[in-house]
Amino acid sequence: MSSDFVSPFAPAVVTEIPPIAGVRFATAQAGIKYKGRTDVLLMAFPEGTTVAGVTTRSRCPSAPVEWCRANLPGGRARGLLVNSGNANAFTGMKGRETVEASAASVAKTLGCRPDEVFLASTGVIGEPLDPAKFDAVLADTAARLADGPWSDAARAIMTTDTFPKLATRTASLGGVEVRLDGIAKGAGMIAPDMATMLSFIATDAPIAAPVLQALLAHGVERSFNRITIDGDTSTSDTVLMFATGAAAKREAPAIEDPADRRLLPFRRALDSLLLELAHLVVKDGEGLRKFVAVTVEGATSSRSAKKIAMAIGNSPLVKTAIAGEDANWGRIVMAVGKAGEPAERDRLAIWFGDVRVAVDGARDPAYSEAATTAVMEKPEIAIRVDLGLGRGKATIWTCDLTKEYVAINGDYRS
Amino acid sequence: MSSDFVSPFAPAVVTEIPPIAGVRFATAQAGIKYKGRTDVLLMAFPEGTTVAGVTTRSRCPSAPVEWCRANLPGGRARGLLVNSGNANAFTGMKGRETVEASAASVAKTLGCRPDEVFLASTGVIGEPLDPAKFDAVLADTAARLADGPWSDAARAIMTTDTFPKLATRTASLGGVEVRLDGIAKGAGMIAPDMATMLSFIATDAPIAAPVLQALLAHGVERSFNRITIDGDTSTSDTVLMFATGAAAKREAPAIEDPADRRLLPFRRALDSLLLELAHLVVKDGEGLRKFVAVTVEGATSSRSAKKIAMAIGNSPLVKTAIAGEDANWGRIVMAVGKAGEPAERDRLAIWFGDVRVAVDGARDPAYSEAATTAVMEKPEIAIRVDLGLGRGKATIWTCDLTKEYVAINGDYRS
Repeated sequence: MSSDFVSPFAPAVVTEIPPIAGVRFATAQAGIKYKGRTDVLLMAFPEGTTVAGVTTRSRCPSAPVEWCRANLPGGRARGLLVNSGNANAFTGMKGRETVEASAASVAKTLGCRPDEVFLASTGVIGEPLDPAKFDAVLADTAARLADGPWSDAARAIMTTDTFPKLATRTASLGGVEVRLDGIAKGAGMIAPDMATMLSFIATDAPIAAPVLQALLAHGVERSFNRITIDGDTSTSDTVLMFATGAAAKREAPAIEDPADRRLLPFRRALDSLLLELAHLVVKDGEGLRKFVAVTVEGATSSRSAKKIAMAIGNSPLVKTAIAGEDANWGRIVMAVGKAGEPAERDRLAIWFGDVRVAVDGARDPAYSEAATTAVMEKPEIAIRVDLGLGRGKATIWTCDLTKEYVAINGDYRS
Repeated sequence: MSSDFVSPFAPAVVTEIPPIAGVRFATAQAGIKYKGRTDVLLMAFPEGTTVAGVTTRSRCPSAPVEWCRANLPGGRARGLLVNSGNANAFTGMKGRETVEASAASVAKTLGCRPDEVFLASTGVIGEPLDPAKFDAVLADTAARLADGPWSDAARAIMTTDTFPKLATRTASLGGVEVRLDGIAKGAGMIAPDMATMLSFIATDAPIAAPVLQALLAHGVERSFNRITIDGDTSTSDTVLMFATGAAAKREAPAIEDPADRRLLPFRRALDSLLLELAHLVVKDGEGLRKFVAVTVEGATSSRSAKKIAMAIGNSPLVKTAIAGEDANWGRIVMAVGKAGEPAERDRLAIWFGDVRVAVDGARDPAYSEAATTAVMEKPEIAIRVDLGLGRGKATIWTCDLTKEYVAINGDYRS
């Protein structure tokens, strides 16, 4: 798993983001797998904090995912414990025991009920995770809880990520400014319906749990569920969102109804935050050199458009062509064809950037190799396909497939 | 697209196969794309030859695929023209004109109707294919028609293949020995429902076209539709089978009924031939080093088993792990989970070769790293998953994902 690869999109300097009223956290080195770096994140929330979550659609979810699913309906959160290095997935009864023991330890440390503690683990599948690793660091970590820096939190949850991912937004809620902060980690097993993708969002807005859940589910569908790095879905995908309600002290209105029109700016800010985090995950895809937006329009439905866009974004032949800066639109045609969705060859048009390369089921007569090459040499590439059938449209984001991806995941022994 | 890669499964010497009574063919250098090698195959069949075919399920099929689909219902074949280097796919009206012109030329050359001529093209998508290329070589090629060598035919249809693929069988049909010969080409865009996969089978058995179609469809479902190299489906996949009926002169019975019990040995031989050719295609997968059989059993249905096996076989993380000789069964769990089919974590068991690595939803307590590594070092690897739910079972075949695959398909410019 060793590689010197660093994403070309890694920022030279990580920009800190401001605190969220009510949210305190600290990180620790528990030595779960990694040495010389933090691998545990503990977050504490004040009484009254609501929670929402979206988890993997894998049929073999990790023990922490099952724990979160069981406790999300309660809608209340006081603590979050995340570790990197071990996914606590496919660990059977031991995995469940670890989850129960660590939630109990966090509950005791923070003075809350275990079902108010949320858990997430990312890393190796199938290795037992010893809850004693948490117990050894919990008291000390709890003693260091503070409202920053968020980059520390983002770093503690990294696995093969090459840079920490964090983003922030503000929004007006009934005339009062509230804040949203988020962190995320990638970087392999990233696919629709999420992947070894963890993201945690916090806000000081006073929003009831069912409303928060509706907002989060809506935003995730348009962000994390529209990215793919290798088409592989993890057992551990988890996006959790916590709303402390601290802004109520500043007269922000408590929102109980998802149709409340005062939510609109908040919803826009959340959607934008989630999309930024999702893009950061793609921009740290294992071994990537290119960030690719694939837009399919003119489909018979937006669901159909998304499926075709994903077929393009997951095609190894498309992704290797992009790595080679080769505007091989024949492979786009192939991917459209294999998606199994309504498409008519003779109505297809394909663009790389602003250059139309194919139209009416054949190469564009005005096609310029030089213009297309200029598009392909850029680090960010937009591919657009018009099916010419209907009004369905969708955009997904992906990256190229390079030798580095194989090296990072192949761990060649021979 | 240049690479010095040669499949580790390439035979040191290509074994010739015997002629099929009634089948004559010749190859030519038409200079369609390649230089210094043959790129055209012309086959001629005697009057009364029946034909069956299975083509890609791509929504954007090539012009030759559409031509074959239109003429297969006729059930009669007198000629076959195949070229490599240009797929005549996504070539619009020009593509259709090329197909009509070349069928007409072959029909004139062989003295038959155009709808008795079958066509297949493989290679670059989106480039116009000039029918004059065929006209320039057809007369000379027709003058050289002979009953061998089949390896020449197999070589003319290669694209990125590193060795010619041919296989032969005999079967008793009503007490008379008949023969089946087949050739195939891969090597990228290989996926379920076929890919840039062409295969042509000929036999001297006197079998009616509808019966031949039933036999071929049955056999392809269990062979070519169970292999995957990169999950990408080509616009050009075509399997055609021709039955000259020449064995009728040696008293082989004419078969008009698919339920005729005298067909059983022939069906077995055909299934076996198709599976050998399908395995050869995988064994020449671009950049491969390992040939992998994935068996899923205990599924709720065989359809479900095949879908899960394909999810495993198409997972980049599974395939890169195999390239690295890493028995990373956590990635198998991930792939099972993402398939979306019924699976219960706590009933899963996983084997690499004969080594059980996971059982009852957790690592096998008796798991031996050394024993597993010994399995992974071999060129042929069997992965088996028991879901413990039902009696559904399926095996698919795939290969590993290596840096060579990326190099072959990436054509790095930077």
